[in-house]
Amino acid sequence: MNTLVAVDWGTSSLRAARLGPRGEVLEERSSPQGILHVPPEGFATVFEALCADWTRAGSTFCLMSGMIGSRQGWLEAPYCPCPAGFDSLTRHLAWVQPGRTAIVPGLSCERGSVPDVMRGEEVQVFGALQLLGLEDGLLVLPGTHSKWVRVERGHITSFSTFMTGEFYALLRQHSLLARTLPAEDGPLDIAAFERGLALARSGGSLLASAFSVRTLALFDRMATTALPSYLSGLVIGEELHASLVPGDQNPPVVVIGSPALTERYVHALRFSGVEALPVGAQATWQGLWAIARNLNL
Amino acid sequence: MNTLVAVDWGTSSLRAARLGPRGEVLEERSSPQGILHVPPEGFATVFEALCADWTRAGSTFCLMSGMIGSRQGWLEAPYCPCPAGFDSLTRHLAWVQPGRTAIVPGLSCERGSVPDVMRGEEVQVFGALQLLGLEDGLLVLPGTHSKWVRVERGHITSFSTFMTGEFYALLRQHSLLARTLPAEDGPLDIAAFERGLALARSGGSLLASAFSVRTLALFDRMATTALPSYLSGLVIGEELHASLVPGDQNPPVVVIGSPALTERYVHALRFSGVEALPVGAQATWQGLWAIARNLNL
Repeated sequence: MNTLVAVDWGTSSLRAARLGPRGEVLEERSSPQGILHVPPEGFATVFEALCADWTRAGSTFCLMSGMIGSRQGWLEAPYCPCPAGFDSLTRHLAWVQPGRTAIVPGLSCERGSVPDVMRGEEVQVFGALQLLGLEDGLLVLPGTHSKWVRVERGHITSFSTFMTGEFYALLRQHSLLARTLPAEDGPLDIAAFERGLALARSGGSLLASAFSVRTLALFDRMATTALPSYLSGLVIGEELHASLVPGDQNPPVVVIGSPALTERYVHALRFSGVEALPVGAQATWQGLWAIARNLNL
Repeated sequence: MNTLVAVDWGTSSLRAARLGPRGEVLEERSSPQGILHVPPEGFATVFEALCADWTRAGSTFCLMSGMIGSRQGWLEAPYCPCPAGFDSLTRHLAWVQPGRTAIVPGLSCERGSVPDVMRGEEVQVFGALQLLGLEDGLLVLPGTHSKWVRVERGHITSFSTFMTGEFYALLRQHSLLARTLPAEDGPLDIAAFERGLALARSGGSLLASAFSVRTLALFDRMATTALPSYLSGLVIGEELHASLVPGDQNPPVVVIGSPALTERYVHALRFSGVEALPVGAQATWQGLWAIARNLNL
């Protein structure tokens, strides 16, 4: 393998990178054609349109992760059950074109009586661990559906999905609170964000705390422009409260996400006295490159 | 006072009853003209259209409760702070027409660093206590925004609002889960409802548990038709988990609401080993009638 075409193909967008022999990013491209916007027979065409010049070279291998491996994607890559190590991903690739193009499987786990799933985050987790030189850890991947992931001796042992970003958007746009909140979010108001975090940390339920967005405005106790930051603190704070143990026994938490969300989660973790180790989007490319290298193509 | 015209005028609807000298309901009427559907100067006209024949009699008094007393209503009746007894309501009526038509004030309270408010439920609470002959108690008024109310020696000492009904509707209609859920709710599936209650009772956050609606369907572990009942159990269960103390130290809980919601909450409380005392919609008429009688008109 001389170069790797690494693809992160999710529900709402598609990102691709051409990586050199040492995993270095030679070029990046993106498209809004997430799997929801592609008809069932259209994946090859969309991929060709974005990356044909990259894949024409004979020794180029292509590896994809994300919802592209779901039942609604190009080819279903069944979930690997946890605990799952880095090698499990390599062994269970779904081959679109043998030896040339493969899709990384997602992971499933059991939490009590209910299952949980991820697709794409497993690649970021292993990529981040390699970048940081870690074999154990607690990681969070904030987003529409945040994932909290526990890794022990190089294996993902359990994880949990929080619909944090989606709850924020639902409350922001479709709830009674939308009438109270300003049209635009504006920059983060740190004091309001921390006030939301503090209320969430004291326990209780978002079902109740969310109503305070309305009452604080009703009694003129918080500026309207600060309310989105307060609500963000309430939802992120509840996610942290459910994921961390009380007191100072929490390990450092690796944060993998977009710059804006990573900043909020790092701030929220430190506000709770927990060390945060931010890792950027390069975790995806690192993870895909490591899997490809492991194949010895 | 020979007869009382009692009015429950909320955000989305308007209900009125003509009550006889012993508080008995002589006639009931309703209209979809909640305060959101009435222009600022239109309240008198809407009320006349519904109740003119009732109010024409000289000795008729009219008492209203609900959002009609808010800033967006007919006349603002400022919130009475808790602790508040039945007499506080009588003393702070807002008079639309002195001696003839009045609006009952809402209540406010402080929970930690945030305020909470209610309008209309205070009348139902005092009405229910009188119907049951109680001076102390824990009450729940389920709905779009459920209220949990604590009463000590005839005074409402504190209460808490849960946006339970609204969260259910948001998740049901606007979230990713809407794609998994069937178009119609169908009848309550008791087993699925209890499974949701049980998961919520074990702690954690709705941010995480809500995702199990999707994963249980993904792995064919629950019939699609049962998922709305399961989700209902998750949200109602979280409300109960946040409002009850662990173990068997909870007092009986008075449940005041519509027949369908009352049935769910009574079931959920008994599932958690808590005694439930259901009271129907007559609590509103009882409360308004008791206030009017207290005025000695």
